[in-house]
This record gives sequence, structure tokens and C-alpha cells, in this order.
Amino acid sequence: MSVSVIRTVDAWWRLDGDTAVRIDTAASTTKELLADRAAISAADGDGVDVGELELVSPVTAPCRVVAQLLNYRSHALDTGADPDTLQPTFFRKSSASISGPLDPIRQPAHVALLDYEIELGIVVGADIEIGTTVTQENLHQYVAGVVVANDVSAREVQLTKVQVYESKSYPTFTPLGPRLVLLDADELRRIPDLHMTLAVNGDTRQDQTIGDDLITPPADALTRLAAFQYMTAGDVLLTGTPIGTAISAPPKIVQKLGELIPPSLKWKFFFGRQAKNPKYLSVDDVVTASIRTADGSIDLGTQETVVR
Amino acid sequence: MSVSVIRTVDAWWRLDGDTAVRIDTAASTTKELLADRAAISAADGDGVDVGELELVSPVTAPCRVVAQLLNYRSHALDTGADPDTLQPTFFRKSSASISGPLDPIRQPAHVALLDYEIELGIVVGADIEIGTTVTQENLHQYVAGVVVANDVSAREVQLTKVQVYESKSYPTFTPLGPRLVLLDADELRRIPDLHMTLAVNGDTRQDQTIGDDLITPPADALTRLAAFQYMTAGDVLLTGTPIGTAISAPPKIVQKLGELIPPSLKWKFFFGRQAKNPKYLSVDDVVTASIRTADGSIDLGTQETVVR
Repeated sequence: MSVSVIRTVDAWWRLDGDTAVRIDTAASTTKELLADRAAISAADGDGVDVGELELVSPVTAPCRVVAQLLNYRSHALDTGADPDTLQPTFFRKSSASISGPLDPIRQPAHVALLDYEIELGIVVGADIEIGTTVTQENLHQYVAGVVVANDVSAREVQLTKVQVYESKSYPTFTPLGPRLVLLDADELRRIPDLHMTLAVNGDTRQDQTIGDDLITPPADALTRLAAFQYMTAGDVLLTGTPIGTAISAPPKIVQKLGELIPPSLKWKFFFGRQAKNPKYLSVDDVVTASIRTADGSIDLGTQETVVR
Repeated sequence: MSVSVIRTVDAWWRLDGDTAVRIDTAASTTKELLADRAAISAADGDGVDVGELELVSPVTAPCRVVAQLLNYRSHALDTGADPDTLQPTFFRKSSASISGPLDPIRQPAHVALLDYEIELGIVVGADIEIGTTVTQENLHQYVAGVVVANDVSAREVQLTKVQVYESKSYPTFTPLGPRLVLLDADELRRIPDLHMTLAVNGDTRQDQTIGDDLITPPADALTRLAAFQYMTAGDVLLTGTPIGTAISAPPKIVQKLGELIPPSLKWKFFFGRQAKNPKYLSVDDVVTASIRTADGSIDLGTQETVVR
């Protein structure tokens, strides 16, 4: 059975059913906690009701946040890309964007096209040196566990700047948690069985089993990343999102239509059309996001974030 | 007169003309050195000939490496972009790409279109919290100094993956140094006077005075960055490159031409043409890069890197 860790402002806790047992550790970062596994195992005081805890992200900042672009066939097709010829592509997010699983998502004043992307977050457990080959067999040496992530995106910033770094890095644009679920070698093989569900105000928008749709799995992704990016314990890899985001018009088609008109007109047209799309997030919208196996043996819990 | 710091594997040195005086400090990172300014001032032992030192980067990794896309009018126009409507855009490089000012640039086996970009690197001197407004007046509170940078780029990776993070992050793709030149408030006002020169095998390719061509200056850039990215002492901002890179065909035009043919054919055509462009770097090419004011009062020194 997997071990789940949650975090409050001043403590780490191990989940035992619906109760949380305080972990006796001096760790102040996820990296330090992952170096103190004995303390996680040893936790055995009186449990408290999880509902009474004010949870924060179980992944502490600063850390590296690397993300995979278009890593689900369904989402790639939905944006007009060909999943069979796509190059596996990474980008960075600022870890200043990390927020807790119950924190509000703050909509910047200049952003109208605020979108959601449920993603499985892979939390690194040990140094991944440049040139490392990560395989399904040694994955457990490098990966500590998994976490629910929302890769919140300001679509007008993303599309006009092309480089997605800023559009996905504003504060609160990376809600993580509630649980950091620590997985052993056998449990890591079950990542394809994880099912992701994201709903807005109860309306299901994303609903996919990872193994049915994922393009580049974690071991291969980490190997490709290690060609140029050193990673260490507590860093996180966001592995992409399936179909169902608010953005629906294929940017590629827009580009083709738009080649004959100046960019400002093209974007005015596109953003005008998108502004009428009711799927984008608005103030007071409630986003719920869950990831678990069908049998419940691996359960990353549910984020509930409100747009402010 | 500005203070110049250089670094060898086991020591930091202050430049006094052509000699280097060892700094008595326990600092092992650039951040720690910048916190020990007294030691830099106090250095006064016997000087050694700078030519005898095996210099490494004066900016230590890990650190944040953030870079500005298309931040010189001449380079923007050369790539087919309109500098008057460009959105200031940032991206990340892996700090695992940092190498020394005399180290070789290693050409990855899968990269044929290896390009150079001389850039002024801004080295951060203090925490820049999210939401900070950086102005010309308070710039000295946040910026410690400047360094010569080469933003080495694998153009076929950059163009096919669109997100530039990987293409500019392979090991040795960010030579920094030789000097970290510490600037006071008055000296920081002279950044526009700095002149950048990059040559390949003695053939001058880039030759520009920053103030004649720069789009978004450092104070404004840092303010925009601080909207989403926390920075701290020892982190570096690469501020873009002027005209003269090997890549010369405007990607925008290529996109327009290429919309009617499949991407694989488009890139085959474009890369085939580019492969005949002799300006791309090849094994044994020597890249020299210098940045200084015309009067020599601020002089960042000369990088000399060989492609291997």
C-alpha cells in the first residue's frame, strides 16, 4: 500500500485512512523530508481528522518545475498537432507559481483566457545527473512519488509570446497536492492505470486514464530531460494534460488562417472568439481535480481551488 | 573604476590590471561571494599573471538562468519579427549548460545547426521578490554586475520544438565570463555604452553597441520578470543578442511558405538550405566574444571557446 504525505504550514503528516499522523522530522523542504524516510515510517502518534488541517502544497518551493508540452494524444490532436510526428518537448515553470491544493487561483488583471490542465506531477527522489538513462527498472531510484497538479495557463499570453514560460508561471498557477503519494517500484508500474478527472463547478471537463493516451512515459521523459537538465530530490516534472481544456480552436489552423493578416488583427479575431467560450475560468469558479487508480489502492486525493 | 572578479576551480580573484589577487573568502558559490564584498575589497596579496590561471565561469551552477527572446531590434528584424509589436518574452536555460570562458563548446551528435549569440549577462545581487518594481534608480540594489555570455543554440531543435528551453540548454551551451564585473549605481547607467563583439575564426559576426539596438532595458525586464519569477543573488538574466547570428532565413517567412506542405518536408527543405550556410559553427571553430565600453573603463574581458 502506498504511503501518502500531506503538509500544513508547520508540519508534515502521514495519512492513515481519514486521519493524519504527525511526522517527527526537522525537514522544512520536500527534499529534506525525502531524506528522512525513517521518520515517515515511524510516525505513530494520535491521528487528527484530515478535514481539520489547513493543507499547503506537499512540494515546497523553490524547486525545479519542468513540464512536458502536448504529451497526450487526445490533447495534441485537439490543438491541431500530429501526435505521431511530435517532438517530445519540455518547458519550465517558475516554482513561485506553486500553491496549495485548497488555495485560490488568482486571475491576473490582464488575463481573460484563464485555462486549466490537470496533470500528473512526478516528484524526483534523488539526483538525476546529466546523461542518466532512466528505465522502468530503475525508475524507483529516481522518482519518489506523484502528486495532482493543475498547469494553469493564461492562453492569450501563451499564444502571443509563443514561449509558454510566463503564461504558466504567475503566482498560484501551479496548485499541487493534496497528497504526495510515495510509490515503490511495483506501484510505479501502475502509473498508466491512474485515472485523472477535472471538473469546473461540478461539470466534468477532463476524464482520462493515463495509459490510454500518454505519449512519452516518465522513464523515457526523464532520460530525455537528463540530456540537458540536472534534477534533484524535491523537483517536479509535470507530464502533460489530456483533452478537455477550455482552449478548443486549434492554434495551427488559426496560424494558417492568420498568415495573410497582421498578427494584431489575427489575435484580436481569435481572442474575440475565445472570449465567448464559456469554458474559460471566471472568478468564483470551483476547480476540482483528482487522480487515482480504479481500485483506489493509489489515490492522490482531490484539489479544490476557487478562482479569485 | 569597476571591480572585476575572476574564478579558478579552487579560488576567487580580483583583477588589478593584468594581475590577479587572491580573495580570502570561504565562498564556494557566486551568491556566497556576493555576500562577502568586504573580502573582495580587502584582497591585497601578491598578484599572479592572469594568463597563468585556468579560469572557470565566475557564475556558479546551480543558479537560475533566465533569458530574453528577440531583445535587439536588429536581430528581431533579421528573424522576420516586428520589433514595434513584439511582446517582451522570457525563457529558461538549464544552468547545467554553464561553462567557463575558455572551455570548449561541445557539439551534440544530433546537432548540425550550431549557432552563437553574444549576450550581456546581468548577475543578480539580492532577492527580487515577486511584484518588485525595478527602476534605473534602484537597479544597483538588485544587480551586482555583468558578464559576457554566449547563448549557444541548436537551431534545428529550437525550430522543431518551438519551446527553446532544450535547444539552448545542452552542456557547454552557456559559456560565461571571464570576468564578473561588479558595477555601482553610476556604472550601471553605462550599460547602453557597452559594445559587444563576437568573431568566429577572427571573422567578426556580431558588432553592436547595446544602447543603439536594445528593446527592453534591464530595469524594465527585471520588473516584468518579477511578475512571476523570484530571483536571488547569483542568478543571471541573459538580455538578448543583436544581428549577426548564423541563422539568417526568417523563420516567419519559412512558416508562411511552409503552411501548404507537411512539417517534415518543410523542415527538410529549410534544414537542407541551412546546412549549406557556412556561418554555423563546426568542430575546431574558435569563437571570441568581448564586451566593453569604448573608453575601456568597463571591460568584461574576452571569451575564447573552441567547438569540439
